[in-house]
Amino acid sequence: MSSSHNQLDTKSQAWSALFSEPMSELVQRYTASVFFDKRLWQADMQGSLAHAEMLAAQGIIQDEDYAAIQRGMAQIRSEIEAGTFEWKLELEDVHLNLEARLTQLVGDAGKRLHTGRSRNDQVATDIRLWLRAEIDLIAGLLREVQGALLAVAEKNVDVILPGFTHLQVAQPVSFAHHLLAYVEMFARDEERLADVRKRVNRLPLGSAALAGTTYPLDRERVAQTLGMEGVCQNSLDAVSDRDFAIEFTAAASLIMVHVSRLSEELILWMSQSFGFIRIADRFTTGSSIMPQKKNPDVPELARGKTGRVVGHLMGLITLMKGQPLAYNKDNQEDKEPLFDTVDTVRDTLRIFAEMIGGQTNAQTGAKEGGITVNAAAMRAAASKGYATATDLADYLVKKGLPFRDAHEVVAHAVKTAQDQGVDLAELPLETLQGFNRDVEQDVFDNALTLEASLNARNTLGGTAPAQVQAQIARHQARLQVVQA
Amino acid sequence: MSSSHNQLDTKSQAWSALFSEPMSELVQRYTASVFFDKRLWQADMQGSLAHAEMLAAQGIIQDEDYAAIQRGMAQIRSEIEAGTFEWKLELEDVHLNLEARLTQLVGDAGKRLHTGRSRNDQVATDIRLWLRAEIDLIAGLLREVQGALLAVAEKNVDVILPGFTHLQVAQPVSFAHHLLAYVEMFARDEERLADVRKRVNRLPLGSAALAGTTYPLDRERVAQTLGMEGVCQNSLDAVSDRDFAIEFTAAASLIMVHVSRLSEELILWMSQSFGFIRIADRFTTGSSIMPQKKNPDVPELARGKTGRVVGHLMGLITLMKGQPLAYNKDNQEDKEPLFDTVDTVRDTLRIFAEMIGGQTNAQTGAKEGGITVNAAAMRAAASKGYATATDLADYLVKKGLPFRDAHEVVAHAVKTAQDQGVDLAELPLETLQGFNRDVEQDVFDNALTLEASLNARNTLGGTAPAQVQAQIARHQARLQVVQA
Amino acid sequence: MSSSHNQLDTKSQAWSALFSEPMSELVQRYTASVFFDKRLWQADMQGSLAHAEMLAAQGIIQDEDYAAIQRGMAQIRSEIEAGTFEWKLELEDVHLNLEARLTQLVGDAGKRLHTGRSRNDQVATDIRLWLRAEIDLIAGLLREVQGALLAVAEKNVDVILPGFTHLQVAQPVSFAHHLLAYVEMFARDEERLADVRKRVNRLPLGSAALAGTTYPLDRERVAQTLGMEGVCQNSLDAVSDRDFAIEFTAAASLIMVHVSRLSEELILWMSQSFGFIRIADRFTTGSSIMPQKKNPDVPELARGKTGRVVGHLMGLITLMKGQPLAYNKDNQEDKEPLFDTVDTVRDTLRIFAEMIGGQTNAQTGAKEGGITVNAAAMRAAASKGYATATDLADYLVKKGLPFRDAHEVVAHAVKTAQDQGVDLAELPLETLQGFNRDVEQDVFDNALTLEASLNARNTLGGTAPAQVQAQIARHQARLQVVQA
Amino acid sequence: MSSSHNQLDTKSQAWSALFSEPMSELVQRYTASVFFDKRLWQADMQGSLAHAEMLAAQGIIQDEDYAAIQRGMAQIRSEIEAGTFEWKLELEDVHLNLEARLTQLVGDAGKRLHTGRSRNDQVATDIRLWLRAEIDLIAGLLREVQGALLAVAEKNVDVILPGFTHLQVAQPVSFAHHLLAYVEMFARDEERLADVRKRVNRLPLGSAALAGTTYPLDRERVAQTLGMEGVCQNSLDAVSDRDFAIEFTAAASLIMVHVSRLSEELILWMSQSFGFIRIADRFTTGSSIMPQKKNPDVPELARGKTGRVVGHLMGLITLMKGQPLAYNKDNQEDKEPLFDTVDTVRDTLRIFAEMIGGQTNAQTGAKEGGITVNAAAMRAAASKGYATATDLADYLVKKGLPFRDAHEVVAHAVKTAQDQGVDLAELPLETLQGFNRDVEQDVFDNALTLEASLNARNTLGGTAPAQVQAQIARHQARLQVVQA
Repeated sequence: MSSSHNQLDTKSQAWSALFSEPMSELVQRYTASVFFDKRLWQADMQGSLAHAEMLAAQGIIQDEDYAAIQRGMAQIRSEIEAGTFEWKLELEDVHLNLEARLTQLVGDAGKRLHTGRSRNDQVATDIRLWLRAEIDLIAGLLREVQGALLAVAEKNVDVILPGFTHLQVAQPVSFAHHLLAYVEMFARDEERLADVRKRVNRLPLGSAALAGTTYPLDRERVAQTLGMEGVCQNSLDAVSDRDFAIEFTAAASLIMVHVSRLSEELILWMSQSFGFIRIADRFTTGSSIMPQKKNPDVPELARGKTGRVVGHLMGLITLMKGQPLAYNKDNQEDKEPLFDTVDTVRDTLRIFAEMIGGQTNAQTGAKEGGITVNAAAMRAAASKGYATATDLADYLVKKGLPFRDAHEVVAHAVKTAQDQGVDLAELPLETLQGFNRDVEQDVFDNALTLEASLNARNTLGGTAPAQVQAQIARHQARLQVVQA
Repeated sequence: MSSSHNQLDTKSQAWSALFSEPMSELVQRYTASVFFDKRLWQADMQGSLAHAEMLAAQGIIQDEDYAAIQRGMAQIRSEIEAGTFEWKLELEDVHLNLEARLTQLVGDAGKRLHTGRSRNDQVATDIRLWLRAEIDLIAGLLREVQGALLAVAEKNVDVILPGFTHLQVAQPVSFAHHLLAYVEMFARDEERLADVRKRVNRLPLGSAALAGTTYPLDRERVAQTLGMEGVCQNSLDAVSDRDFAIEFTAAASLIMVHVSRLSEELILWMSQSFGFIRIADRFTTGSSIMPQKKNPDVPELARGKTGRVVGHLMGLITLMKGQPLAYNKDNQEDKEPLFDTVDTVRDTLRIFAEMIGGQTNAQTGAKEGGITVNAAAMRAAASKGYATATDLADYLVKKGLPFRDAHEVVAHAVKTAQDQGVDLAELPLETLQGFNRDVEQDVFDNALTLEASLNARNTLGGTAPAQVQAQIARHQARLQVVQA
Repeated sequence: MSSSHNQLDTKSQAWSALFSEPMSELVQRYTASVFFDKRLWQADMQGSLAHAEMLAAQGIIQDEDYAAIQRGMAQIRSEIEAGTFEWKLELEDVHLNLEARLTQLVGDAGKRLHTGRSRNDQVATDIRLWLRAEIDLIAGLLREVQGALLAVAEKNVDVILPGFTHLQVAQPVSFAHHLLAYVEMFARDEERLADVRKRVNRLPLGSAALAGTTYPLDRERVAQTLGMEGVCQNSLDAVSDRDFAIEFTAAASLIMVHVSRLSEELILWMSQSFGFIRIADRFTTGSSIMPQKKNPDVPELARGKTGRVVGHLMGLITLMKGQPLAYNKDNQEDKEPLFDTVDTVRDTLRIFAEMIGGQTNAQTGAKEGGITVNAAAMRAAASKGYATATDLADYLVKKGLPFRDAHEVVAHAVKTAQDQGVDLAELPLETLQGFNRDVEQDVFDNALTLEASLNARNTLGGTAPAQVQAQIARHQARLQVVQA
Repeated sequence: MSSSHNQLDTKSQAWSALFSEPMSELVQRYTASVFFDKRLWQADMQGSLAHAEMLAAQGIIQDEDYAAIQRGMAQIRSEIEAGTFEWKLELEDVHLNLEARLTQLVGDAGKRLHTGRSRNDQVATDIRLWLRAEIDLIAGLLREVQGALLAVAEKNVDVILPGFTHLQVAQPVSFAHHLLAYVEMFARDEERLADVRKRVNRLPLGSAALAGTTYPLDRERVAQTLGMEGVCQNSLDAVSDRDFAIEFTAAASLIMVHVSRLSEELILWMSQSFGFIRIADRFTTGSSIMPQKKNPDVPELARGKTGRVVGHLMGLITLMKGQPLAYNKDNQEDKEPLFDTVDTVRDTLRIFAEMIGGQTNAQTGAKEGGITVNAAAMRAAASKGYATATDLADYLVKKGLPFRDAHEVVAHAVKTAQDQGVDLAELPLETLQGFNRDVEQDVFDNALTLEASLNARNTLGGTAPAQVQAQIARHQARLQVVQA
């Protein structure tokens, strides 16, 4: 029966008879993790209770021991929640802090908890349990952001803005269609998290230090108690694997890349040169110097935080590169980047959901204060860059011109319009006929209006309002199913 | 009907009437991609044929056009395979090179191929088709490496080496068990690739430049023809999404992290201080200066190539960060890192499969020339670092001692053995009894031998030979199913 | 006397009696570097000649040998320049290819060249020599880009555009002042390269494989011949150090970060919503679909290439992390990222110098075809976002109001102007006086014009035209000194 | 006169009349930095005092105001040092917290401090001042680590260990020589920091928000007061430049790469298979399970922390990529990675200095408890891998054999020795003569001993004890000069 209790009391003394001196204070601070890993306390407790339940079921500890462990854990839980639990640096990490207190509270039963496990498999189990819960939270927040985007999209199906390629006006698109592109991205993020979750949700516990244990554990039972989908099948791999942390951080990096793209657009759209949208004042700041300023701090900071998460991904990969088996102390460095990644993604998604979709008004139940759309400015911009030039070419093709010739004819028309400082639709019919005699009056309604252009792109995935409506309905159904 | 043909002929002249000068040669070289993207030719052809088939089925082009396109493509295929196809820098990329040649060969039908698509959705489709095939190849190679590891494991279940934590001798483990840890890693890599593949295998074609197309395409039909699992549902997202490239490169980075860990161990094991294994001479090099040298070049280079793939991952993320919708030219930079990642992973896995498992002897059908195991050196090392100290403590616990006291007793015993320069098993019974009087003669057989230690760890995932055999059988079954 | 010649002839056979089989072809391809490192041939030759000169001076080889080596090298040089040199994969790398040919040409003298050196110190020397030359080229290109920016700045001191913070209109600035910010960045890049160059320019040669050599070399003499600033003082460090490659790539990453920032601005400025500038048509492309398109491909691609260089930096760091001394084969992976970094930075700077500053007209000697400035659009944008609000607050402060009160008064004035859809300068005097009675007629000239705002910022580093002129003169003098 | 005071009091209300609502609490937490940037308080105070001194000297504020500011700052300093200063989240950052308190303490004088500056130039100045001090501390720690390595080297000039290439025994080297390789690395790090420091040590203050200021500042005077080497010459660049942070983090990454290499070697050397050294028990930990364990936690953790710093570098570059001018809120994300980089490097170097060189014994003044060298184990390992094979080849060359033939002869001799399981020196003279008849009795003393091999490498940078002694003397002189 393992009893790290007495050991724990004497951590400020030497480890064992083998050691001629205790750890120096400088080293203690360098190697301790309790000040950041204490956030794992619930996962640690959850894992310990499942382990104890199994030990009792297998007859490895007595039922009284299990009862005492449950009692002690309940006590510790209330101490931590009340803020009275005393975290000790010299006890290194969350695991030893909890175990030492448990043994203080329930004596020998506490000492028996560590039977058949070591810190190597315990810590791997705790991070997985904790990360699984965070993934579920983040998936929920991804759905909230999608919901907010959908709500704005629903109201803006017929609002037209210039679709850009190369940040040059390309073709008119529905603002709802544009927002739905981000719904697709965040939906993929959700999918990816579900895939990562499968590999997070496997149980290392029972692998002990590296080689398995000499006690007749029932690892499948523990996995079931903890709701895990499987058991890590190789003890050496179980204690040294951090794939799941890297995989999660890679998925989080993609979430932040999507956030950075949306942020970039929000910032552009809020600049005076675009003026397409406003976000609520509570997401902006002013300047102590410049009285006219209203700055989009939140999207800027979110764009900046992409770097932070990507940096953590790089850090974690560098950490694992070239490590021999099995557990090495390097691995302790997995936690801070992982914790900060989770915090950053959670805070960012939460704030984006509200910034885009608004807050629920407690009285009316309606959402208020999301982004404000300046449809007129969008339309004006869409009218500026010859966005319907492709449609004019298509019009000529329908009149029988080969596309290439139509393309060249329209290039000439655009040049003329540019020289005159007008839009294509502002050229007189005669001028257009000068480029090609088959152009008729209907060109203005059937090709050169923004609406005609939009409506014409009516295939799956296209920007025609009918398509966009269908996509909104599809996403709404999808999100409801998940939430139900 | 699009006709980029004439345009293509005049790429060295200005783009259209809008342009006052042709592209400078310096710019042409800076922006062209044909010298690296020509490897996409098969994917490009496959996508074009599926697109043409649908255009004909929808009545957008004539059946004769489709037949001509098929004929032209067959001709181009044989030209490329024969090495007679002339790739032109001024035609920028693989797509324009193929299309220009097609139009040369079959005239107007060739010009009609581009109907309802643009280069933006075409290039996205091509990369996805190409990457899907590469993923399947890499998954196969991952299975080959697993097979090679399993073959070595099968022969080495009873070979004992020291299991390390912190590179300090920890507990004895089966060499097969150690190798199986890598089988777990590469099996996870396979799983991850399967997840990535789902998101790669979706069809952007039909999204046109960014907003969809005005032709009545049947995108689902194209997806089905190409064996894709779905259609990208938003045209803006479809042309600008490169998640799949980043996600694949992240999965590839993990493969290389695993390769780097295995390489690190192979290098350690081959060093004179360990001497655990040898790899075949054809994977090593000598030195022109030092006549005794035999260097493990292959694992070293593989470890180094981890950096290359990780660098590509970072490059791709940096590329996408903060890009506004929809397509930007930045995206052209996705190809070289992706291509090099695929090449690196493929070459590395292929060479590792052979280096570990050997080559098939054409005459006997048996594998020969894989790694050579020095069981004696492994055993000697396992006997050096008091690897059975935990077992002695467990022995004392069974005699009734609390674990903590047992731990301290054994620490004293280890200290004594160290001072005498002997192993625990070499201490006389009386000496051991001096530490605890309950120690009996059976301690030597039941606790202090490597075999006793191994056999005792007989729970799921543990290193006991029985467990290891079961794992080997499980993996063999799994790999056979996949291969069948 | 080292004689790798015969060895070289037999590389396709086994290395030496120690090896039971030759390297497999797959391994040969995996480990060979000749197809990318042959670009080092000049550096390799330069290093070899300096080494041979010293060997002769020290009496380690005969003068006839040195003469023969010189003769052979001259022959090889003309073969390579003529494209007739036959590079062989089985000779692995540039070093062995040259040495093998030399020995073919001059026999025993060629064999004696390798005396007192090994490939480990030779390759380190070659990369340093090559990189030193590339640094000098890149420094020159950085000066060209600065020159181009200065030339545009000189003509645009009085052109006013809105200075942004948070991409919101902040205060008016001179366009020249804006461009000079980039001159500062590229000037810092130049400084950094000069610092890197010092550490590149040290000589590893003479460190041999790892421990030094048994021949009485004069390493200082070789350093002097090669124009190097010092000799690597520790043989183990000399052959394993790749700091200089990482340091260079970090400096290159900053160059590309600066390029990416400038590119981002060029792309914004070219978008229809800004319309501030145009770049010459030869740096743009059109679209085969959209006849009106003129896309800023070059700045977009340059922005994208930032990822490539940053990826290489990360790759190189990952490569070196945790490598034990001395030389490991991993290090061969330093070359491709380094080569590609140099190529990318060189091409990008060259093209930016021309895109910004234009090309020299051969007849007039004047630069033509650089960026075209739309001063009216800049001015219109600067007039849009209440850019002189700070100046109005400063005006009130001069009238005796505390700044905070002035700030609040101006916020009210801006709100009123926003509501009326006019600029501050368009509010009638009475309206302004309604906010504060001390406002007088001079407010329009002394505070609310863009010119007044600009002129007021007349301290070192400020945007007042007088300051900007002084900075232009300072930079011109600095660049001339360097070029002289 | 700027007066952010009242503004500061109302930050929980709206920014100004322009804003319809205050910042939400969620946003406040997302955007606030005070909980990590308060560590800049001394730099902020230092910058403010220099700014105030100049304002008074220029007559922009009264001497009484300057005196009041000095008084108020002294008070704040004692409050912070006493732990009684109340940091407020709603005041966002360290700058506003200090300024608000100053104005509480000294009224209008406090409001006048912000004259002619903005937070944009203030924050840039503070980070530079803070980083400059940290660079000096880190440079000192780098010298301490070098001193510790030198102290160990001095005692181990004649201790021989196998020099490795490819982790295969290559040639014998002095242990001191091996340690000196790291002295070279850390000396380069010191150089690099000195280069970075030049570019950190420039003054942005006086650039105001982005365009300079309307007050007649004397920026050179402030630079001089603060000991800075120059003034940032362009206001837009001054407020948006973060090159210095990236450059510093790149230099820090190289420090950590060196630490990771040294750590890797310490870990290898401490493993039972090498057994070359021990580090003091206070830098190791045991295991609660395995009583024999003594784990090198400190080098492992340091190796792991490399990832953390490299991740920060990647994060900072990603942050800056593609940012348009001038200041964007993204930049606030520069601080946490920079702070954590500094902390990590400082803690790591401090602990390495002590771990290698030991602590000063207060009574004797001598260093105690550094690494313990097992010279016998090193020698045994050097005797194992035919480390003197090159020397035997050199011996034969001196007898007249061409090197290539000598190389092949020795390969045969090595093969024979391997087959017999002995070292070359253990082969009888007759056996050696069987390979080449010119071998004589002196081969044992002049070629095959480790000492002979070492002594023969007696050129600059080589491992001969004479060279190593000279290098130690050179480094000692260099470090003394710096410290004097």
